[in-house]
Amino acid sequence: MTEDTLPTRRQLFEMIGKAGGAIAMYQAMTVLGHAAETQFKGPPMLSGARKGASVLVLGAGLAGMVAAYELRKAGYKVQILEYQDRPGGRNYSVRGGDKIVEVGGATQTCQFAPGNYLNPGPWRIPHHHRTLLHYCKQFGVELEPFIQLNHNAFVHNSKAFGGKPQRYKELAVDFKGHVAELLGKSLNTGALDDKVTAEDKARLLEALREWGLLDKNMAYAASLRVSGQRGYDRAPGGGVGGAPTPSAINGLPDLLDSHVWTQMNFYFGYVMQTTMFQPKGGMDMIGKGFAKQVGDLITYNARVVKLAQNGKGVTATWEDTRTGATATASADWCVCTIPPPVLSQLELQAGDKLKAAIRAVPFSPQCKIGLEMKSRFWEENYSIYGGHSFTDQTIGLISYPNDKMHQDGPAVLLGAFANEANGLILAGMTPEQRIETALQQGAVFHPAEYRSEFLNGVAVSWPRMPWILGCTSRWTDENRAAHYQNLVALDGRIVLAGEHASYYGGWMEGSLLSGIDAITRIHQRALAA
Amino acid sequence: MTEDTLPTRRQLFEMIGKAGGAIAMYQAMTVLGHAAETQFKGPPMLSGARKGASVLVLGAGLAGMVAAYELRKAGYKVQILEYQDRPGGRNYSVRGGDKIVEVGGATQTCQFAPGNYLNPGPWRIPHHHRTLLHYCKQFGVELEPFIQLNHNAFVHNSKAFGGKPQRYKELAVDFKGHVAELLGKSLNTGALDDKVTAEDKARLLEALREWGLLDKNMAYAASLRVSGQRGYDRAPGGGVGGAPTPSAINGLPDLLDSHVWTQMNFYFGYVMQTTMFQPKGGMDMIGKGFAKQVGDLITYNARVVKLAQNGKGVTATWEDTRTGATATASADWCVCTIPPPVLSQLELQAGDKLKAAIRAVPFSPQCKIGLEMKSRFWEENYSIYGGHSFTDQTIGLISYPNDKMHQDGPAVLLGAFANEANGLILAGMTPEQRIETALQQGAVFHPAEYRSEFLNGVAVSWPRMPWILGCTSRWTDENRAAHYQNLVALDGRIVLAGEHASYYGGWMEGSLLSGIDAITRIHQRALAA
Repeated sequence: MTEDTLPTRRQLFEMIGKAGGAIAMYQAMTVLGHAAETQFKGPPMLSGARKGASVLVLGAGLAGMVAAYELRKAGYKVQILEYQDRPGGRNYSVRGGDKIVEVGGATQTCQFAPGNYLNPGPWRIPHHHRTLLHYCKQFGVELEPFIQLNHNAFVHNSKAFGGKPQRYKELAVDFKGHVAELLGKSLNTGALDDKVTAEDKARLLEALREWGLLDKNMAYAASLRVSGQRGYDRAPGGGVGGAPTPSAINGLPDLLDSHVWTQMNFYFGYVMQTTMFQPKGGMDMIGKGFAKQVGDLITYNARVVKLAQNGKGVTATWEDTRTGATATASADWCVCTIPPPVLSQLELQAGDKLKAAIRAVPFSPQCKIGLEMKSRFWEENYSIYGGHSFTDQTIGLISYPNDKMHQDGPAVLLGAFANEANGLILAGMTPEQRIETALQQGAVFHPAEYRSEFLNGVAVSWPRMPWILGCTSRWTDENRAAHYQNLVALDGRIVLAGEHASYYGGWMEGSLLSGIDAITRIHQRALAA
Repeated sequence: MTEDTLPTRRQLFEMIGKAGGAIAMYQAMTVLGHAAETQFKGPPMLSGARKGASVLVLGAGLAGMVAAYELRKAGYKVQILEYQDRPGGRNYSVRGGDKIVEVGGATQTCQFAPGNYLNPGPWRIPHHHRTLLHYCKQFGVELEPFIQLNHNAFVHNSKAFGGKPQRYKELAVDFKGHVAELLGKSLNTGALDDKVTAEDKARLLEALREWGLLDKNMAYAASLRVSGQRGYDRAPGGGVGGAPTPSAINGLPDLLDSHVWTQMNFYFGYVMQTTMFQPKGGMDMIGKGFAKQVGDLITYNARVVKLAQNGKGVTATWEDTRTGATATASADWCVCTIPPPVLSQLELQAGDKLKAAIRAVPFSPQCKIGLEMKSRFWEENYSIYGGHSFTDQTIGLISYPNDKMHQDGPAVLLGAFANEANGLILAGMTPEQRIETALQQGAVFHPAEYRSEFLNGVAVSWPRMPWILGCTSRWTDENRAAHYQNLVALDGRIVLAGEHASYYGGWMEGSLLSGIDAITRIHQRALAA
């Protein structure tokens, strides 16, 4: 059965109903409907570890720390080597006083006010990332809502509306209105009579009339009813002058210019759907939560330069990044979470297939820029509370803080989240140029305030972070088919873990699920060895 | 120009562009685009009040308290009479220990654990209700996000899917997929060639392919791409077994059964769009915030039985609800916020037009039921954090708490929010019967837990609240045309205020805007008198 010929759920239920009766059918509906939102089945049950068995974990990001935490719990002797002077890896928040040194030497010292931060890496948590939510709860990491979909934020397309940003709600409501009107016209002229039964046609017309807010002639036209979704020219009020007036609608050609379906679909992405979360106080609260459990196992400032293995164990040679002194660490097994762009550059004793896989994983060059502003003008002046305003410029979007809404004092806007080619453009600039670019481009949304409210900024270009040289894995179908299983397979006594060793690339959930899978297989192999 | 012939925004801009050039056009786009989201222009500027001038305010809900607050600030002598023993009116939260006595005598004492509450009246605040947000900020009322749209909550229609609830995301994604496929087919057969230019047709086909997740044949079919929105049968994971498998899709007839466009449109409602808020700790924090300012002006337990006026002032006769003793209160002017269902029953010295208007305002019979559960099983077992699961049963919906997510301990579900006929059905039951109904019907969403996790409940039927006898005004276009201006007009020295005297019926914003409008006119009349 190929994807294209999969039965509909109704067909499946009918098949199951015939086969097993009502109870089987209900169970199947449950499974098909909602039970498949995660591969997480609770923390791994590793029992019977051999006395004295040891594991060396390379990297104190989430994959490495979850591996270390669960392995120690299972009875293994664990040591972690970490390149940086802090736990968490990309689970990271930049705060006032933090220093960022790039490949190439550019150095920034963050000037944010106390309590303010930028999450340069992960910044949002889907409700179905059960592994991450499990450990957040277990380790007492407090979460708060991350506002993803904001109907009142802007969409900017330089080729639409004369380059003026539009409110998302206006474009999205108008798009569905025009789609409904056109489909209604087609149905009414009989164009789809061979596709839709007469009964369904009548029901679909009624659905389109309601969904698209069509009038009695099945037309999408400006009215108070339509304004009840897209907003009014004059909003409803109280007393004598309380009556609202409708807003005008956009025509189809303008909507086609706007490409608003890109945002409409973005919000429908399974990993982007409401409800989403962020840790209170910064994303690094998660890394710190893990480090409270395994911090005693971590050697910081330890840059691994060589990873060797033989039939009995592994040995990592590492350099102290502060002194240049080298040392070694040995164990029976190794969980290596060093990101492929760095791992590919060190001396690794492993098979050709694994080495080829490490070289094959594409890494993306994201750049995020934090802009600290004097006040939350986007809240008071624009009624925008959290969420994103999208643009087709290099910065990609600006995003509004989800914490401390309605409060006074300086706040940090995400001034850019640039992907792919845009990330590379920003990587090619100095930090100052990146911030200037963010100010120039972001001003399209808030022209009156963007310069005058600006205090300071910080720009994190992931390809320029020496400890990772990129942001996240971006497997294509083709290179995944060729290399993924080779990347995750045990190579002698070494197993890789991290978001790149998962199907949730770029998500903390992928790191954790990968770490759990890696140690489950290490444990099985260790028991069998 | 009727609503049906309003120009599109592009046409308007062209007209403006021809008339006034680029700057006028930009200003017009700003105004048309986003400047019209509220009638609030800041607190009223009432200056020059005559020394000793006085106003009697009837009702310490939000309309009455904002009137009193601003009038005192402007120099008036103000007194408030309030029926109940607390401020806020419908701005109200029920907590453990609170007693509810209904018309008919039924009495409930709420059993919720400390910190838990039900908001029986208003419960969510749109981002564009600037008046309410202004006073919340001014009075230090802390707000937190109210999760309105939750893609992972359920939609239940007893005539669809054999009565089994479906996740909103699955239905909504499938609906847009089928709509896109059908419209694509129509376009490709030339059915709309007289409506859409060739260029727009090509662009619209591309838009539909992306928006509807259509395959290369412009068909909506199960695939990993589609599962990237509606969810997977096996979710992506980490390591060796990380590959996801796609979910089956629903066919159009099932979607038509489900009426999912009702929910899709609900979330697009201007007053329902993200971002929404609720006060931390309960809705009554707003009423308490106002009461901190004007509490010294309020006489509680004062049931007004008569409101008289002459050319010089007003006199209210009121009864102490605890002792039965009567007293009077007099002032130059009166702002009367007593809700129409109660106001129509007392002795009122006013013109026939106002009296007819008071009798004409329809009030709705909502019922809300709070169910305290032992744990947040909807979070752990269903990955539902806030938002609503809708049903076509009497209860209307169940709604999940937006505070204290991820925490342990008992939490309060909104077990019913019944409108219109459904509200009346519940009003006809005893509180115990209402709670039993909520448990029976809500179990459709969470059959394994709903009974076993239930601790206690409280049911607030608004038509049975003696101090209001209904929930909110529900003007029709017809009776608004006949009576609204008569309701809000000054009648001698009396002016009405409240959500019923606004175009935001049922919203706190309407109460506040109405209160501000009423005192602005009282002030003008007082200066002119």
